[in-house]
Amino acid sequence: MKEIKIFSPASIANLSCGFDILGVCLNDIGDTIVVRKTSEKGIKILKVTGQKLNTDIYKNVAGVSALALLKETKVNCGFEIEIHKGIKPGSGIGSSAASSAGSVYAINELLGRPYSNKELIKFAIEGEKIASGSAHADNVAAVLLGGFTFVRDSLEFDIFKLNTPIELAFTILHPQIEVKTSESRAIIKNQVPLRKMIVQTANLGAFISGLYTEDYNLIGRSIKDVIIEPLRSILIPKFDKLKEISLSNGALGFGISGSGPSVFALSKGLLNAKKIGNLLKIEYNQLGIEFDIHTSSVNEKGIKIIEYK
Amino acid sequence: MKEIKIFSPASIANLSCGFDILGVCLNDIGDTIVVRKTSEKGIKILKVTGQKLNTDIYKNVAGVSALALLKETKVNCGFEIEIHKGIKPGSGIGSSAASSAGSVYAINELLGRPYSNKELIKFAIEGEKIASGSAHADNVAAVLLGGFTFVRDSLEFDIFKLNTPIELAFTILHPQIEVKTSESRAIIKNQVPLRKMIVQTANLGAFISGLYTEDYNLIGRSIKDVIIEPLRSILIPKFDKLKEISLSNGALGFGISGSGPSVFALSKGLLNAKKIGNLLKIEYNQLGIEFDIHTSSVNEKGIKIIEYK
Repeated sequence: MKEIKIFSPASIANLSCGFDILGVCLNDIGDTIVVRKTSEKGIKILKVTGQKLNTDIYKNVAGVSALALLKETKVNCGFEIEIHKGIKPGSGIGSSAASSAGSVYAINELLGRPYSNKELIKFAIEGEKIASGSAHADNVAAVLLGGFTFVRDSLEFDIFKLNTPIELAFTILHPQIEVKTSESRAIIKNQVPLRKMIVQTANLGAFISGLYTEDYNLIGRSIKDVIIEPLRSILIPKFDKLKEISLSNGALGFGISGSGPSVFALSKGLLNAKKIGNLLKIEYNQLGIEFDIHTSSVNEKGIKIIEYK
Repeated sequence: MKEIKIFSPASIANLSCGFDILGVCLNDIGDTIVVRKTSEKGIKILKVTGQKLNTDIYKNVAGVSALALLKETKVNCGFEIEIHKGIKPGSGIGSSAASSAGSVYAINELLGRPYSNKELIKFAIEGEKIASGSAHADNVAAVLLGGFTFVRDSLEFDIFKLNTPIELAFTILHPQIEVKTSESRAIIKNQVPLRKMIVQTANLGAFISGLYTEDYNLIGRSIKDVIIEPLRSILIPKFDKLKEISLSNGALGFGISGSGPSVFALSKGLLNAKKIGNLLKIEYNQLGIEFDIHTSSVNEKGIKIIEYK
């Protein structure tokens, strides 16, 4: 096997109650990545289509994660990478994670799978470091493990997959505004009132319980964020209105995807997710801001192999 | 049916990672309560044995919870209550919850069960208010529902039972020192660093996941408290030493039971819980402080009916 073509999906981190902890893998939206073995050693990024991104292997997240893998695994060949971006960088639905996780997944396949998908997280995280300055595992874990994922401790790679109630479906609205990561971070307070911490903790625990018992009402009651959302949502035009529309039309929950600017509505059933997508579209059309809308059920498998050669 | 005798068990609240959220019901340690229907209306507490407690129905938690139930339920009879305390008040293993939940459980039985056990929580909480000044539901929920219980929102009674991995067992050491609730509360800080909140939240979520997947190692890695324990543990003589002994002898976790002064070790298997009990006993015997040690598996059923008449 000399060449592999994969589809590396988008993901949502945080999910309101799980700041820096929860992730979920999406369907259909994602990057297509082709990796070929070469006799010449080293990594090359031949081209990036779909988005303007650096092909320097030390600056492109797919190069950085690939280098991290090859640093630990001595091989007698090299790899060339083509990335066809389906996710817009800075959208908040795991653009860097899709490329970073995708490249190491593909290389691992071509090497005969020396690593488990979980083990690949540590290499993919290196790409995340370059993209956002922090080694957060929530998006790459979702992409590599599929389904809902939980990061208990990213330094110790204590990361695992949760249960997925199959009817859960997401609507994602990506307003094409630039929210600088630095701004999005600066807005967060370093101290949290104990009372709010208890509410947030109770919601995360209840959400996890709801995933295992497949209790959609409990999931809806607990997918809430009393800590970060009130601060960050002001950066997203019409956040409160979008939330109101979603919740009054049957959504289980509504929140910020990752650090934004994308937002998500969580529904029971893809049909309802699509209905909410249409309603959010009508609302956002009045704004004069470019935007994309996606709907997706939960992608239980994560990265998909399209073709081997 | 005119008379009922029940056993109302002790419980552990907080469980390190679930401050104000988690509870678990214990076996063998508890209060025995007898309740009789009387033709005369109203509530009487005939006697309390085992501990010196007020028999005034407005000051004894069992009277207060019973009054709350009767306020909502019009009946043509009254009830007299005898309480045989097996739990020492102020121990931190749910003494007030056992009496408060026990009396309403017994009265509900004698009335032909107009309420579910979950509905009884709201009456039992009234007793807790008198005992500690706050309407916390974590102990009474554990006593009334059995097993591990989760309080998502005590004001909305969003409370449910979690899964119990059957091999879990507790060792409880109760040092007979007085820790005033006011002191135990005053020591808690009202602001929590965001980073610590994330660690605590991640541990609670992982603990819940571990209960559902019955992953004893994950339970052990996540039953930790980085917020409250570092502050409160200084009130408990030899806390760090007891913790070290427990963890180095196979305990999955160790922490403060409720607001203390009791501490608990969590083990896989009752045998290990007993072994740790013996080791803690040896250590505490050197101190010259009176103490009790209990071992218990998880009580899945909660309150037990001993006798009907």
